[in-house]
Amino acid sequence: MSELDIEKHVNCGIEQALKIFGDRWSLLVIRNVLMGINRFDSLQDGLDISRNILTRRLNDLEEEGLLVKTPIKKGAKRMMYNPTAKCLALVPVLIAMIDWSKNWSLDKEKKWSSVVDRSTNEEVHIAIVDENQQPVPMSNLKLRF
Amino acid sequence: MSELDIEKHVNCGIEQALKIFGDRWSLLVIRNVLMGINRFDSLQDGLDISRNILTRRLNDLEEEGLLVKTPIKKGAKRMMYNPTAKCLALVPVLIAMIDWSKNWSLDKEKKWSSVVDRSTNEEVHIAIVDENQQPVPMSNLKLRF
Repeated sequence: MSELDIEKHVNCGIEQALKIFGDRWSLLVIRNVLMGINRFDSLQDGLDISRNILTRRLNDLEEEGLLVKTPIKKGAKRMMYNPTAKCLALVPVLIAMIDWSKNWSLDKEKKWSSVVDRSTNEEVHIAIVDENQQPVPMSNLKLRF
Repeated sequence: MSELDIEKHVNCGIEQALKIFGDRWSLLVIRNVLMGINRFDSLQDGLDISRNILTRRLNDLEEEGLLVKTPIKKGAKRMMYNPTAKCLALVPVLIAMIDWSKNWSLDKEKKWSSVVDRSTNEEVHIAIVDENQQPVPMSNLKLRF
């Protein structure tokens, strides 16, 4: 089973969250690129997305400074897409979505996607902290816009 | 200046993030409801969204268990929408988006929306932690799907 096939058999927190949030392609492209799936054809197969939509999303993400496009090898026509630091910095958003989807799913048994600490192989989570990195209880939070 | 007017004059991290992520209505509706803007007409004015789209999004969010619809007073026809615990639990996703948008904006001067600790009135942020609430460096993270 390839890395791409696995996707269809686990409960992906990001996918679940974006079912609610609307158009989900951009974040799913980012997720897959962060997993190391970075060629056009692999992205298209993995996401089951039309070439047109994928091309548009990749161009948008490149324009936003999230992806860098390079030929797969020197002089090649086929392209690969690598994440920038700005793209890597989206990982907390993905973890927050995964945490939420898992906590609120009725399907506790299913295998879930996760983000792990590679030194321990254990799952990481999101915490809300103040400027001194001290945890702040959810009940204290106030949105200010 | 009303609560709703303020929105157009600050740089909203969530709005910025969702410009990239695609359809942004659902999360913006959630954001506004969490701020206490919970009547249909106020939501429509604040978001500058068509009645049709707003109705559809509110129904979807109610169906997903994120909002509860009740008459604004007993026997009234007009409705208000209150966030459920599942909806409140999305706050970390919003904070993660705000943190990211702020960190990666070129516009450092502009006033940004934020989430604050109401006991100190200071901004809160997202941290990535392990099962024991110890911080994990970004460079250690690995996505597992």
